[in-house]
Amino acid sequence: MKFGRPRGTRDFLPSEMRVRRFIMERARRVFEDHGFEEMDTPVLELWDVLSAKGGDEVERQIYKFQDKAERWLGLRFDLTVPLARVVANTPDLTKPFKRYNISKVWRYEEPQSGRFREFVQADLDVVGSPKVEADMECVSTAVAALRALGLEGFEVRMNNRKLLEGMVESLGLRGEREGGIFRALDKLDKIGEEAVGEELSRQGLEASKVEKILGFTRLKGEDAMEYASSEFGSSSLTGEGMAELRRLQELADPYGLGGVFCVDFSLVRGLDYYTGPVFEIRAGKGEIGSVAGGGRYDRLVERFGGAPTPATGISLGVERLYETLFGRISAELKPSNCLVYVANVNESVAKEAVRVSRELIAKGIPAEADIMGRKLGRQLEYADSRGIPFAIIVGPEEIRSGKFKLKDMRKKEESLLGIDEIAAAVKSR
Amino acid sequence: MKFGRPRGTRDFLPSEMRVRRFIMERARRVFEDHGFEEMDTPVLELWDVLSAKGGDEVERQIYKFQDKAERWLGLRFDLTVPLARVVANTPDLTKPFKRYNISKVWRYEEPQSGRFREFVQADLDVVGSPKVEADMECVSTAVAALRALGLEGFEVRMNNRKLLEGMVESLGLRGEREGGIFRALDKLDKIGEEAVGEELSRQGLEASKVEKILGFTRLKGEDAMEYASSEFGSSSLTGEGMAELRRLQELADPYGLGGVFCVDFSLVRGLDYYTGPVFEIRAGKGEIGSVAGGGRYDRLVERFGGAPTPATGISLGVERLYETLFGRISAELKPSNCLVYVANVNESVAKEAVRVSRELIAKGIPAEADIMGRKLGRQLEYADSRGIPFAIIVGPEEIRSGKFKLKDMRKKEESLLGIDEIAAAVKSR
Repeated sequence: MKFGRPRGTRDFLPSEMRVRRFIMERARRVFEDHGFEEMDTPVLELWDVLSAKGGDEVERQIYKFQDKAERWLGLRFDLTVPLARVVANTPDLTKPFKRYNISKVWRYEEPQSGRFREFVQADLDVVGSPKVEADMECVSTAVAALRALGLEGFEVRMNNRKLLEGMVESLGLRGEREGGIFRALDKLDKIGEEAVGEELSRQGLEASKVEKILGFTRLKGEDAMEYASSEFGSSSLTGEGMAELRRLQELADPYGLGGVFCVDFSLVRGLDYYTGPVFEIRAGKGEIGSVAGGGRYDRLVERFGGAPTPATGISLGVERLYETLFGRISAELKPSNCLVYVANVNESVAKEAVRVSRELIAKGIPAEADIMGRKLGRQLEYADSRGIPFAIIVGPEEIRSGKFKLKDMRKKEESLLGIDEIAAAVKSR
Repeated sequence: MKFGRPRGTRDFLPSEMRVRRFIMERARRVFEDHGFEEMDTPVLELWDVLSAKGGDEVERQIYKFQDKAERWLGLRFDLTVPLARVVANTPDLTKPFKRYNISKVWRYEEPQSGRFREFVQADLDVVGSPKVEADMECVSTAVAALRALGLEGFEVRMNNRKLLEGMVESLGLRGEREGGIFRALDKLDKIGEEAVGEELSRQGLEASKVEKILGFTRLKGEDAMEYASSEFGSSSLTGEGMAELRRLQELADPYGLGGVFCVDFSLVRGLDYYTGPVFEIRAGKGEIGSVAGGGRYDRLVERFGGAPTPATGISLGVERLYETLFGRISAELKPSNCLVYVANVNESVAKEAVRVSRELIAKGIPAEADIMGRKLGRQLEYADSRGIPFAIIVGPEEIRSGKFKLKDMRKKEESLLGIDEIAAAVKSR
């Protein structure tokens, strides 16, 4: 293959794209039903914008280049930074500003199974509300979208950065050490407790503090709450974080998350800009793993020169959903959008077959006619290979009478009908 | 504004994005009704692919850069080159392969009114058919989409590169001069006949040949056909091109283009890869100007290492449509997707308002509840500012009785209804 693609990018043929389109449109519908509105920003951003968020690791992953006027640009690596830029520059947005965006982002990472350099995210954000109701709004809308896609067995894990900051503060580790501690804890799922403990020790933490931190992340629910009060209560952040988590727990049921919500202190999430609740959604009773994650970022808009603006959001991993749901959705979708193939018996009536196809489309029936100059047998083979469920055969006699044979491609039944009757018959299936 | 955007790019707030979404979804629907299927390709392409098509002017406009492994990449500047690459690499595609793609492309041009560096194109292509029916399929589907968007006053102008090549050949100018002549003629609309004549003279054409060429582009319909036969008949391409144009004329009516189709020999189109029919659609009886254009490119797939594969396509200028239709569509769309705002009388019942909003959504009624901790008056102000047509007010009494006041925000009418009745009442409006 002389002319290939950049590594980590993909083409999507129609059989693949229709599954992706189904996922994206189903999510879009649910987002809009919950009052979120679509906003779009450029794929290209100024380098100053992309790097304002900070974080070396992320910066290394950005596609960065100079344009012909030697300005430094880059491809967006997430949909949150562009949102923060717009909010900073648009002070008169009605609040709460509930926005969604389902779009491509780019990260220069080593491609591996399920990880790409060009991929789609579906983001939901609420700007302007400091209340945990806004966090819950994002999480519950995300779960509703995942339910609409047929997923089940959810686990919504929540933690609060305030509580983690309270822990760090009460251990006298606030400041530059904080980021390293959070990044280490974020790896608990991947590398296990022992390795995280070693990493924390390497960062210079005393063994007793490492044990206190790891002991905390082992606990869930009320046990963890009590542990936090007794061990980390000297910081006021601990109390604030706990109060928010308790309120989130109360809200789980009205927001449709009864039985799936849980507080989990091992959840940290890697990004350094989170300031409050952080969350992750798993599906398939753990079999599918994480399908969405996010958190509150109350100080991000300020980094782009805006007024202090509370904000929170969640990102659904469309690629993970695509991978997980491909087989099922692919089997459920009709094989073709086209419902009727209008064949001609020979070239002399080809134009009339086209005319009939256009009449059907005008009546709301997706239709196609031959554009290859093929003989009747080949036309019907094509219709069959495309999975088009019905065919009409147009010949001189049919044109005279205005009655056409409607052929059910699977059942091989035929009936003689006028155009209006054909439209009605096809609609009724 | 410290953190701006790259020149020639735009943000689309929800009030703008909904108009763009409407245009794109309406077009998508029409494309699918006509049997076209969506295919998607990466935004990032290898530089070898982007430059394989040739054409210095286009190459200058491509965003080109090296990735971290020093491979040369670029952003796609159209949707045709990626299609040709995929077709070349996928020999077993069922033919005809009718694909559409509505996506962003990038060109580094000087931004000006209505011209951007990041913009959306909607492309329709038919791969695998050498017949003019395939060209007509693209053009008529494009017109159907434009009609569905409410445009009228169409003019479908067609010419044939074979005829133009026949002209050049019969004048002894085939070869390297051809590209320059076509590019000069492509400017007829913009700079006028005199300036084009001067440009052709500067290219070294004799005055008599310049006059023959310009005389031809002045004619339309039968006059032009006769002129071409008598002046350029020595090339077999002239006859082939004319035969195709006559067949296209015959097809106009069955394809729904009766009365809007015209042969126009002044239409050339700039791209150098066209090999047969070229076309352009104008709307609004000339007031809106060109909204779509394209042509046949039978030799492009070969340039990407594929087998010889006939192909043709048309591109709709979504930005032009957005600019033209914004006011009308914006006024016609509902101000909000959300239909019911579920207000609470105070914080103690806020959770119940959320629960009611979720019940309504489950019944198919887009709904929202407060997430700001606002008092009742501010909640209703917000609902009004968003243009949400109905509100329900939830208080302790309503929760006990299961009956809620449904408030029509514009008429200020109220009625007391259960949730099912509310859903039914809102649906019926």
